[in-house]
Amino acid sequence: MKAAILTIGEELISGFTVDTNAAWIAQALLPIGIRVVETVSVGDDPEAILGALERLDNRMGLVIATGGLGPTHDDITKSAFCRYFDSALEFDTVYWDSLVERFASRGVVIPENNRSQAEVPVKAEVLPNSVGSALGLRFRSPQTTFILLPGVPLEMKAIMTEEVLPSLGKRTGDKWITVRTSGIFESALAERLESVLASFPEVKVAFLPEYSGVNIRLWPESSGNKEPGEVESAARAIETELGALAYGRDQASIGKIVVEALTARGETLALAESCTGGLVASLVTDVPGASKVLLGSVVAYSNAVKEQQLGVSPESMRDFGAVSDVVVREMAAGAQAALGGTWGVATTGISGPTGGTPKKPVGLAYIAVAGPGGTVSKEMHLAPIRLPHKAATAQAALNLLRLEILRLEQ
Amino acid sequence: MKAAILTIGEELISGFTVDTNAAWIAQALLPIGIRVVETVSVGDDPEAILGALERLDNRMGLVIATGGLGPTHDDITKSAFCRYFDSALEFDTVYWDSLVERFASRGVVIPENNRSQAEVPVKAEVLPNSVGSALGLRFRSPQTTFILLPGVPLEMKAIMTEEVLPSLGKRTGDKWITVRTSGIFESALAERLESVLASFPEVKVAFLPEYSGVNIRLWPESSGNKEPGEVESAARAIETELGALAYGRDQASIGKIVVEALTARGETLALAESCTGGLVASLVTDVPGASKVLLGSVVAYSNAVKEQQLGVSPESMRDFGAVSDVVVREMAAGAQAALGGTWGVATTGISGPTGGTPKKPVGLAYIAVAGPGGTVSKEMHLAPIRLPHKAATAQAALNLLRLEILRLEQ
Repeated sequence: MKAAILTIGEELISGFTVDTNAAWIAQALLPIGIRVVETVSVGDDPEAILGALERLDNRMGLVIATGGLGPTHDDITKSAFCRYFDSALEFDTVYWDSLVERFASRGVVIPENNRSQAEVPVKAEVLPNSVGSALGLRFRSPQTTFILLPGVPLEMKAIMTEEVLPSLGKRTGDKWITVRTSGIFESALAERLESVLASFPEVKVAFLPEYSGVNIRLWPESSGNKEPGEVESAARAIETELGALAYGRDQASIGKIVVEALTARGETLALAESCTGGLVASLVTDVPGASKVLLGSVVAYSNAVKEQQLGVSPESMRDFGAVSDVVVREMAAGAQAALGGTWGVATTGISGPTGGTPKKPVGLAYIAVAGPGGTVSKEMHLAPIRLPHKAATAQAALNLLRLEILRLEQ
Repeated sequence: MKAAILTIGEELISGFTVDTNAAWIAQALLPIGIRVVETVSVGDDPEAILGALERLDNRMGLVIATGGLGPTHDDITKSAFCRYFDSALEFDTVYWDSLVERFASRGVVIPENNRSQAEVPVKAEVLPNSVGSALGLRFRSPQTTFILLPGVPLEMKAIMTEEVLPSLGKRTGDKWITVRTSGIFESALAERLESVLASFPEVKVAFLPEYSGVNIRLWPESSGNKEPGEVESAARAIETELGALAYGRDQASIGKIVVEALTARGETLALAESCTGGLVASLVTDVPGASKVLLGSVVAYSNAVKEQQLGVSPESMRDFGAVSDVVVREMAAGAQAALGGTWGVATTGISGPTGGTPKKPVGLAYIAVAGPGGTVSKEMHLAPIRLPHKAATAQAALNLLRLEILRLEQ
C-alpha cells in the first residue's frame, strides 16, 4: 500500500517550525509494511488543503494528515475536510462534558474556544485522544483512507499508537535496516562497500551523511521481496567489512551504547567539557538510566574553572594553551580524579565564530579518554561552524570512549 | 510569487532524517517577499520525481528542489530533471580538474564516483558551490523557475545565500513577525489577546506551541498589504499586553538574551544542573560569545557531586531529597560560590522514565537563580516525558534568570 503524509500549518511551510511529525509517522508505518512515497505540507488555507486532498485522493491508499485541529482560530483543517467530503458537523455533548471535567480536574475552567473540538463531522469515524482534547478522525473515499490527527506531537503519537497502527495490520516483506557509522567519509565508505553491495542485487542502499557520521540505509527492492532475509544478510556483510567503524543499527546512539556498556561493567563516567559546552553530558543524559553511570560533568568554559575544578596545571595552560593535546589529557584525568569516575572524557576546541588563529584555526578540536588502560587522545579538524563543530566533537568524544571500552573487552 | 519546495531522498520520506532544508529555505525566502505555499518530499525514484515536477510546474512561479546530487549511486535527481526537461549531460573538464585539485589540496585522491558531479545538463545554468563539490542548477519552464541544490545543508545554504537569493530581488509587503512567549499556555494566550488582535483585521495570526513556550506568528493578509506597518503595530500591541511574558521576536532565544544582557552588565554565570544534564550549558554555549559570560557548569548527576562540587549539605539531601526546593537553592548558591559567578542557576527534577514516587512524580522540577538580589526558586509540574521535560526545565531556568536580570534593571 502506498501512503502519503499531509502536514498542515503556516508554521511548517513558512519554515518557522521544522516538521518532525512526518518523519515520526513514516517510521511508525515502516514496520507494518506501509511505505510513505510522498509527504506534502500546506498552510492553514482551505483552498490549499482542498488542492492537496484532490492531488492525493485515488493516487494513494492511505493519507495521514496532521495539524490544524487545535482550539485557536488558525485551526481550519477540520472544516476543509468537511468541505471535501461534503460532511456536516455535529456537536458532541458527551465529549464536551468530558472535556469540561478533564480541565476541571486540573483546576482550570475550560476556555470557550475549546468548544470547536467537540464538533464532529458526521461522515467521519472518531479516533479517541488519550492525552489531549483534539479528536482524531477517519474519512474514506472510494480508493483512499484519510486519517486526520492533531499536530501536537504527543497527541499525534498517542492516537497513532493506540488507534491507527493497530487498525492497519501486520508487516510484510523485509524490515529496513540502518547501519550507523562514525569516523569515515561518505565517498570512502561507498568505495569500501562497493564489492560487498554488489552481492546483494535485491537490496537498495542509500548513504546518509550527518554531522555525527554517515548512516547506511538498506531496504528491499520491493515490499514483497523474493528472498526474505537479504536485507539482514547485507547489513551483516557491511558490519563485518567495517568492523568498529559501524557502531550500531537503526535508532542506536553512541550515548546509549556507552551508557549500556558501562552499566553492564558496573563502571562510572565523569566528563570535562570545554568547546562542547555541556553537549556531551546532554547526549548522555538523554538516555534513560544515564544516572546509573554518569557522575557528572564539569563544563569548564573559563580557564580558571579548568585549573580549579579539574586540576589542569597553569604551566600546561601557559605553554600549550587551553586548546591543546596536553590540556585535553589533563582535563580527562582531572574529571576522573575530581568526580571519582572509572572513566574521564574531555573535549577542548575552537568552535568559532571567533577565537581562531593561523596555528589554531576555528574547527580545531582535541578529545581525550582517561580509563583503566591509560589515557588516549585525538586531534581533529572539523567543520569551522559553531553548532556542527560542537555536535561532531561531542560525537567523536563518545565514540573514542566506545572504542576504548571495546579495546578493553578484546 | 508563489513558491514550492521539493526535497528529494528516501531518508526523508521514510522518516529516517527530519527535513530541515525546507524550513531553512522558506525562512530565507520570506524577507524577499516570496511565500512558500507548499512543500513536497519524494524518494530517490525517477518516476516519483517526475510526477512531483509535473504537479508543481505551471502552478508555482518558483520551485526550489534539494537532494540527490551527491556522488553515490542513490543520487538520481539530476538525471530525472534531465528527463523532464529533455536535456543531455555534458562532462565539464574544467570543473573536474578544479575538483581534482581541491581534493589534492586536502591530501586526498578524488574518488572515481565523484566524476558524475562534473556532468552538467546542457539546458541548465550552473550555480557555483563554494563549499562542496555538487553544483547547483537552474532550469526554466514557460511559467516556472526550477532551482536544484545539493541536500547537504551547508552546501544548500551557501548556494542559496551566494547565488539564488541575490538573483530573486527585493522584498515587498510587511515582514512576518514572531513574538515569542514563555510561561503561558496556548488557550490562555489566545483569550488574553482576543481584543488586541481584533484591532488588526489585516494581520493574520497563528499560535505555535513548543516545549519552550508558545510563539505568536503575525503576517499580512496579502503580500502587498494596504496598510504597511500593521504587522509591526500588532506585534507592539501584543508585547505591551504581555509584558515580560514576551521575551523576544523571530529567532530570539532566551540563551542569547541572557548572554547579551550579562555581557552588557559585565557579569558572569555559573550553572549547576541535575535533571537538565548539561542542556542549560549547551543552550548557553550555542550562543557565539558565550565564553565572555559563562564560567562553567557543574552537571551534578550523582548526589556525591552535588555535595562535593557544589557544597549542598548532606542534611538537606537527607531531609528534603535531591529533588527539592531547598536543594535547588543550595545548588544555585553553590555554583555561584564554587565557580565565582555573579549569578548561579540550578535545576533538579525527575525526567523519567523511572525515579518517580507518588509524592514526587515524574515531571516534577525545581529551578533556582542566585544573584545579587538574593535567591529565587520555582516548583514546576511539566510533561512527564524525558526529553520534553529536560527542554522545558532548561528553558524555564534561563527564563527565570532573564526575569531576575529584568527585575534588577527596573
